[in-house]
This record gives sequence, structure tokens and C-alpha cells, in this order.
Amino acid sequence: MTATRHITLPAGFIAAGVKCGIKESGKEDLAIIAAERRAAAALLTTRNQVVGAPVLWCRRALPRGYGRVRGIVINSGNSNACTGPAGLRDAEDMARRTASCLGATAEEVLVASTGVIGHRLPMAKIHRGIAAAAAALGRNNDVAVLRSIMTTDLREKSAVARGRIGGVPFTMAGIVKGSGMIAPSLATMIAVVTTDLAVSPAAMHSALVRAARTTFNAVTVDSDTSTSDTVVVLAGGAAGNVPVARRSKAFTGLCEALEQVCGELARAVVADGEGATKVIRVTVRGARNDAEAEAAAKSVANSPLVKCAVHGGDPNWGRIVMALGKSAAKVEPEKLSVRIGGATVFARGVGGTFDLKKVETHMAGNSVEIECNLGLGRAAFTTWTCDLSKEYVTINADYRT
Amino acid sequence: MTATRHITLPAGFIAAGVKCGIKESGKEDLAIIAAERRAAAALLTTRNQVVGAPVLWCRRALPRGYGRVRGIVINSGNSNACTGPAGLRDAEDMARRTASCLGATAEEVLVASTGVIGHRLPMAKIHRGIAAAAAALGRNNDVAVLRSIMTTDLREKSAVARGRIGGVPFTMAGIVKGSGMIAPSLATMIAVVTTDLAVSPAAMHSALVRAARTTFNAVTVDSDTSTSDTVVVLAGGAAGNVPVARRSKAFTGLCEALEQVCGELARAVVADGEGATKVIRVTVRGARNDAEAEAAAKSVANSPLVKCAVHGGDPNWGRIVMALGKSAAKVEPEKLSVRIGGATVFARGVGGTFDLKKVETHMAGNSVEIECNLGLGRAAFTTWTCDLSKEYVTINADYRT
Repeated sequence: MTATRHITLPAGFIAAGVKCGIKESGKEDLAIIAAERRAAAALLTTRNQVVGAPVLWCRRALPRGYGRVRGIVINSGNSNACTGPAGLRDAEDMARRTASCLGATAEEVLVASTGVIGHRLPMAKIHRGIAAAAAALGRNNDVAVLRSIMTTDLREKSAVARGRIGGVPFTMAGIVKGSGMIAPSLATMIAVVTTDLAVSPAAMHSALVRAARTTFNAVTVDSDTSTSDTVVVLAGGAAGNVPVARRSKAFTGLCEALEQVCGELARAVVADGEGATKVIRVTVRGARNDAEAEAAAKSVANSPLVKCAVHGGDPNWGRIVMALGKSAAKVEPEKLSVRIGGATVFARGVGGTFDLKKVETHMAGNSVEIECNLGLGRAAFTTWTCDLSKEYVTINADYRT
Repeated sequence: MTATRHITLPAGFIAAGVKCGIKESGKEDLAIIAAERRAAAALLTTRNQVVGAPVLWCRRALPRGYGRVRGIVINSGNSNACTGPAGLRDAEDMARRTASCLGATAEEVLVASTGVIGHRLPMAKIHRGIAAAAAALGRNNDVAVLRSIMTTDLREKSAVARGRIGGVPFTMAGIVKGSGMIAPSLATMIAVVTTDLAVSPAAMHSALVRAARTTFNAVTVDSDTSTSDTVVVLAGGAAGNVPVARRSKAFTGLCEALEQVCGELARAVVADGEGATKVIRVTVRGARNDAEAEAAAKSVANSPLVKCAVHGGDPNWGRIVMALGKSAAKVEPEKLSVRIGGATVFARGVGGTFDLKKVETHMAGNSVEIECNLGLGRAAFTTWTCDLSKEYVTINADYRT
């Protein structure tokens, strides 16, 4: 996942990442990703009722969640959240300055900020950073761009998909930051996806909403939902295809590519979860409906006791059954079965006789598979999470405001 | 909290705790608490849909949640949960054998079991334990009784209240076990309260339901709800008062005493939370209604990021605001204020200017106070939780099934 080219791989995009001094570490902390022409844009933001100023700005720029923009400016080290009207003016100022460098209007530039909550941005540094990034825009800065959006992330997370739509080859690429405050509704996560496809803005948004349900909204690190979660897709159109509209055959291809890229990014977030040593895939089948399948899967994925058991490599199926039973989904123990790494550990109300050594070997790996069948219907949902380690506590007890 | 007399302090109760070999440690693991005459009994059990066999037995014995019983038999080291029809027969067998020692019917004996999920009880050991405990019943065994119900508990947790109702002095005493899987709906907790008051069974149940809302159901260690939570109140009547009925003046006095005893027990559970180093009291005021006040308070109390911040002594109010914003309660940042240890750290959408040293000193103590005012109504709720430490992970990653 340490590719050197990603976000500008689709034709029509340039980018830059610079060190402007927001982060005490002195690392990259400001990036601009720009489309050479106005791109179709789709936006998803946090469901938290308390939202950062950049989220408010993006919602103002794209009130329907889609439209056409020239790019996005992102900073890390400070989320510009809980900063009141002054913070919103700062976000607008970031958009306006970036826009003037790009020859665009302020509303054609989105803004995302991530980092500590409750502090005004150091605007003099931001101004210098925007000027420096705008001057450096190009196709060889993708690594610096990715580093600019990271906070507690340990890994650089990117994904690329290629395909053909209507016979025309296209590229789609994405980057993401986020490893804590990752919860059912997006998290402290910022993801940007670019593609050279031509897509109508409304179709781009539909595809994003659809892809998010099984990707970004299906992962959880700690059940906490941040104030700043933002996912942006930019479709520049340089591929030269007939613009993809909703309800077209091409739309299915768009959705597949987007789901692939978003899925890779979302799973990379979990693998980079704060203190994570293992990725846990929880699949619930046999639920009465989609909502209950999701509730049951997320109850297991969010249970601290399940996450600790996986961390310790302990096939403690009692905790999995407990987490299903406390969820909002209908559960009948005598119809329920649970498998870990393919071995049935619980069925019809009682524990199974399984090969303990085999299950423990599976759990000792860095990818753990939990499958639950509620036996009540046909709905299914898959979610990804990570284990809960002492390192999570260390990171979050020591991360200072 | 290491009183030597508690559960038999109210006249009319005898008890015993013995070592019957369920726990590998060889410590006390089976107790009987008996009323000398049939006592009014009230029962509350877990809301988890997967319940242990003893819970099923108690619900069968007291289908309306109240009635008259002679006592309760409790074992630790094995929760007899997820053990199917055979497990239910084992629970009934425990009740029947205890009943025959007490000269009662099986339905007059409640059963509670706590410990690992999914293993059949060692019934030969249980039989010997019941016989030994029944033979030892008396008023000098309270310490052994309390030890018999403990699993990962570090502290012995008991509470005593005394008062007068209708001029008649009475005593009420309670014991509780539980430190992990403690969540909004009771948890892996077993609590027994005895009193010499005469109370109608229905009134006893009403008082328990009322007391539980602000005590046992207001505490959370890890948001996990166990399959075995059981709270039993036994009112023996030896005090000689006119039996307390619902809607009487005496009922208020009963509720106050019960809320005091249950409150002390519930807060002791949090203080003994797995790995806990601090108790956190979260009060939400100004909510639109009771349900939203509770949802907001519990969202803060269950947030791993808030719990880690408190563990680290960090006044990270951004995480508190995040937790309120992600809750089911209506939140408007510009009407919201947050105080830590009495200092306003957030008000009207932005961070306050507060004495950082003073707040840090407050958070360095073992009791942390978080107060949130949503500014939208008059409803309030208080919940108690503990911090999230590395020790929690160690305990729950290493606790073996």
C-alpha cells in the first residue's frame, strides 16, 4: 500500500502536498488535489450532529451532495471543528485562496481538515501552505499528498482500479486517512477518489451512496463517529467516454469500480486501526432484514469483549453470542450458529465440538473470520473491524488536546 | 467495602458460601442465601436475547417477576449459559436440591450462575456444594457468601441501609458481583438484596424496577450486556411492619432505601470495573426528554475515546462533544455546554477558556465529573462508568474460555 502514484493516475488530475507547520512533527500537513477542468463531484459527510467547519463549507458548496468542482484543499493536524463562526470563515478562506490559485470560484473548492478538535487554524501558515502547494501542483507528488492528510495513521492507504466502460479504458484511484474514531457512520476519515471517467454529478453521488454502505459505512474501529468524516469523489472526464448516467448499463460498471476502490480503502483503514494487530471480518447471514443484519454484525464488531478475545487469540464464542443477543436484531439462540475460521463453534443453542487447535491457529493469524447465521431470514451484512489492544489505549490516553 | 456482616444483617436470613471445586483457583464458588420464612421476592433479569439457563429458571419460578420464595442458590466459575435443554435441567436440579434442604418446593428457590459461557456445570461438585452450604447456613458466613459469587471482581462489594417505616426500624443489605460485560442493561452482574421489611411482592417488584433505572441500569463498564444478569430482592418481614403496598406512603421510604443500596452496589461495580483506575460520573441535563438524556449520557460513558482520554487525564472535550453528537439525542452545538470538574470547557459551539491546570488536577484524581447541558429541555440523566486502561485489555484478552 505504499504505491508512489495513485491520486493523479487518472488523467486530468494534479496534486501537491507540503509542510506548512501545523503539525508539531514538521511533517507534510497541507495538500491540494485539483482537476484540470471542472469535475463531477460527489460528497458524503459525517452523520455526527456536531460537524467541523470544513464539513459545513462542503455542504454549502454542494448542497445536494453533488455538483462540479475544481478540487479540494486538505490539512491535517487541526480539524477546525468546534471553532464557531470564525472557524467557518477560516474554512471559506481556505477555499477562496485555493480557488484563486486555480482560477475557480470559492464554491468550486472543497475543504477537509483533520486533527485535534477545538483550536483555530494557524491561518498565516495555511496561507503560505496553499500558495506553496498551488505552485507545486503536478503528477509526481502523490506520496507527499497522502502524507499530508495523515494524523495517527501508521500506513499510507491508497487504492487503484482500472477497467473499461463502453469500450473506453478508465482509471480510478483513491487515498484515505483515518485510524481512530472510526465508526458505523464514516469516522474521522477523509477519503478522496479521482477518476478520468465522465460521469453526471447526480450519477456520481448515487454510486457513492451505494458504495459507502458496504465499504466506509461497514467498517468500525471503536464505534466512535468523528465530526469531520468526508468522502469526495471527483470524476474529471478525460477518459472520453459517453458520460455515465444513472440507470445506464455503464452505471453498474462505475459502481463496481467505486466499490472496489472504496472497499480497499475502508479495509486499509481498519488494518491501520489504532493499535490494531488483526483485521476481523464479521458476516451475519440469515437475518430477517438488512437493518437487522447490519445491527447484528456491528454489535459483534463493536463489542470490546469480542475485540479483546480476538486480540488474545481466544475462540470465546460466548462473547460473540452475547453481542448478537444484545443487538437490535431478532436472535433466537436455538436457530443461531457461529463459525470462527470456518469451524462451527456454536449451533442451536449450545457450543459445538470443534478442533480447538485449528481455530486457535486461525485466530493467531492477522485476519480473523467470524460468520454468524441467525437462521431467521435471508438478509446478510459484512463488516470489518480490528482487535482491541493495549496499544489503542496508549495511543488514545496519550494523544493530547 | 469489606464489611464482615451484610447479607444476613436483616433479621430472618441465613446464608453460607463453600468451595465445591468449580473454580480452578479453589476459592469459594457456591452460596445459598435463605429466608427463614417465605419472603416476598422481586426479580430483574438481563435484556440480552441470549440468556443463561438460571435466568430461564428464575423466569419460570417467578413469571410475573415477583412472588414468594425461600432463597437463592448461586455459583461462580461457570454461567450455565448456552448449554441447551440439559443446562436448564441442571439449573432446575440446583433449585430442587436446595429446596429439599430448605423444606421448600423447587419453584421457591431461585438460581444464578456466573462465569464462563458454554460449558455444562460439574453437577457432582454442585451436589456436594449444595449439601455442604445447606448444612452450614448461618449468620457468620457473609464474607464466604460474597466470595462465592465473585469472578474477575477484585473487591468485595456490599451495601447496608437502615431506616424506619411506619415507626418500625428496618435493615436492608445487598451484595453484588460484576466487573466486566457491564452495560446499559444490567450485565454479567448478580446482585442480591435482603431486608427484614414486610412488603407485598408486587410492591417489591415496582420498587426494584424504579430503583434499577437510576442504579444498575445507569452504570456501564464496556457497553456489553451479559447473558446472566440477575438482581433479586428478598423481603422477609421479620421487622414486623404493616406490609408495604404500592401507592402507600411507606412505599416511598422503601424506594429510597432500595435506591440507596442498589446505587452503592452499582457504583461499586463501576469502581471495580475491569482495569478501572477512575470512576467517571456523566450527567446530561437540558435534554428534550428522559430517553434522550439517557442516550446522550450513555453515549459519552460508552465512548472508548472518552474513556481513554480520562484514563490519560486529558481534558479532551472534543471527544465528549463528538460522543454527544453521535448519540440518538438531539444536539445543537451552539446550545451545548460541557463542564469537567466544574470548569466550563465548551460552550455555545466553541471551546472555553478554562484553567487547564485545575482541570488536569481534577482528572488526575480517581473520580471524574463530566456535566453536559444540551440546552434544549428539562430532562436529565446521570450515569457512571470507568476509564479504559491497558489492564482491561489484558484481563479480557487473557481470560480463557
